[in-house]
Amino acid sequence: MNKVTATNEAMINLPIGIFDSGVGGLTVYRALHNRLPNEHFVYLGDTARVPYGTKSLATVERYAIENSQFLSSRGIKMLVVACNTASALALPKIREKIGLDVVGVIGPGARKAVEVTKDKANPRIAVIATEATVQSDAYAASIRQASKTAEVLQTACPLFVSLAEENWTREPETLSIAKKYLQNIIEFKPDALVLGCTHYPILREVIQQTVGENVTLIDSGEACADEVAELLDFKELENPQKITGERRLCDDLDHFYVTDAAERFARVASRFLGATPAKLEAIEVFGIDQLVNGKS
Amino acid sequence: MNKVTATNEAMINLPIGIFDSGVGGLTVYRALHNRLPNEHFVYLGDTARVPYGTKSLATVERYAIENSQFLSSRGIKMLVVACNTASALALPKIREKIGLDVVGVIGPGARKAVEVTKDKANPRIAVIATEATVQSDAYAASIRQASKTAEVLQTACPLFVSLAEENWTREPETLSIAKKYLQNIIEFKPDALVLGCTHYPILREVIQQTVGENVTLIDSGEACADEVAELLDFKELENPQKITGERRLCDDLDHFYVTDAAERFARVASRFLGATPAKLEAIEVFGIDQLVNGKS
Repeated sequence: MNKVTATNEAMINLPIGIFDSGVGGLTVYRALHNRLPNEHFVYLGDTARVPYGTKSLATVERYAIENSQFLSSRGIKMLVVACNTASALALPKIREKIGLDVVGVIGPGARKAVEVTKDKANPRIAVIATEATVQSDAYAASIRQASKTAEVLQTACPLFVSLAEENWTREPETLSIAKKYLQNIIEFKPDALVLGCTHYPILREVIQQTVGENVTLIDSGEACADEVAELLDFKELENPQKITGERRLCDDLDHFYVTDAAERFARVASRFLGATPAKLEAIEVFGIDQLVNGKS
Repeated sequence: MNKVTATNEAMINLPIGIFDSGVGGLTVYRALHNRLPNEHFVYLGDTARVPYGTKSLATVERYAIENSQFLSSRGIKMLVVACNTASALALPKIREKIGLDVVGVIGPGARKAVEVTKDKANPRIAVIATEATVQSDAYAASIRQASKTAEVLQTACPLFVSLAEENWTREPETLSIAKKYLQNIIEFKPDALVLGCTHYPILREVIQQTVGENVTLIDSGEACADEVAELLDFKELENPQKITGERRLCDDLDHFYVTDAAERFARVASRFLGATPAKLEAIEVFGIDQLVNGKS
């Protein structure tokens, strides 16, 4: 965490890299964009291999490293792993391979959840996430690092991803499914509920309505954006050029890459963000392999 | 379609290859197994890259060819493309690359639908499938080949896949979602409704209840099994060794491969089939690449 001024000089104007398994990470991009309006972003959605949440450790690690190396090769000053599953399973491997600061979403979400709990002696925290994230136990481990006495309950909510992508944010079916998935959590009476999958903030209203107003919802993407802002400040890596004029989500200061189906990505982006990327490029997964392995 | 007896002699004892993007194709395996109890099967579920239904033509073609070449390298006498999306997008390319008979699910499902319609002059056929299959228009094209006067209505039902994998086959939410998705189809008043995604037969009861008993449901996997049986007979490729004793789904005469997450595959298989594969092997996607491209 040393400040190296010569390096900083070269790096401060670079964008922040973000990768996700697909479109879900756009909620993390939105949080970063809102929190850091002077920064530029380069986003990679691995839409050819989405979803990660049902895949194995070895496969998620491999995909995550390829994505990280692709973004690193484009020139970035920091890497954000927006995907909860990749954050849960692959962060150590990514840090080993990439000579950059890497911020995931699990640690920030876990710390924020502990921070907001009322009963500091005995915090009760619930987490909803994909099957792979729940099985990894990464949220529980991070929460217990921040509070040894915390009680944690984790539940997978597989249907929430499809419901978010369908944009069924207020449908009675969504409310009914939420009641079914969150029943154990309601009985657990948590102080905080971590939205441990990038898609879940899209269903925030229904989830809040289901668990009640007494439970503080934690958007791991927002918590991650706060920690990225702190780290940029600490390392003196903030972009010094104040952007004049209006900065909008998905404007041409931010560059989006997908590994497949760009048209579908643009459609879901418009549902999630109310905006379509000005700069959106489809790259081949083969392209990533070639770039990473130096094959021609 | 010539009968070459010398070749047949060498081939008749080989298994039939089946590939799917993941677990959904198990419904097609079940149909083939029931229809052809003397045959052996080798099944590949591409669980590292599932789902195909939201991916592009180029990507689905590439994955489908890799899967076909993997199965071909294991020694099979015929290839069944159980995945509707791969059947819709990649069948010509697979046939170009593989020196074997290839049977998909789209053509058989379409022909069967035309066959069961009551009003032969003006058959009305509805199709439910993934986004990619609907966009490809492959079912509509196949139906019109079988009946120039057919009227076709296609609808994508993205949530059905997750609902089937959750095994929510009788939940009120599933019925309510089915009513929403199938509303246009009910108004269209079809004779037949094609279940154009391998997961949908799992929700057969709810779908039948929603569209009413007057609509004949077509399981493309069952239609495919009938055409495979005819082709085996025509080519004299039926396995001559009658299996003595009980033949069960997933017994050790059938070999299952997955590209990732074998444990999850076994779990969903047990939900779909009431049985877990006796022989289940996880292979690396890298393994496929190496095998296909001859890299070491």
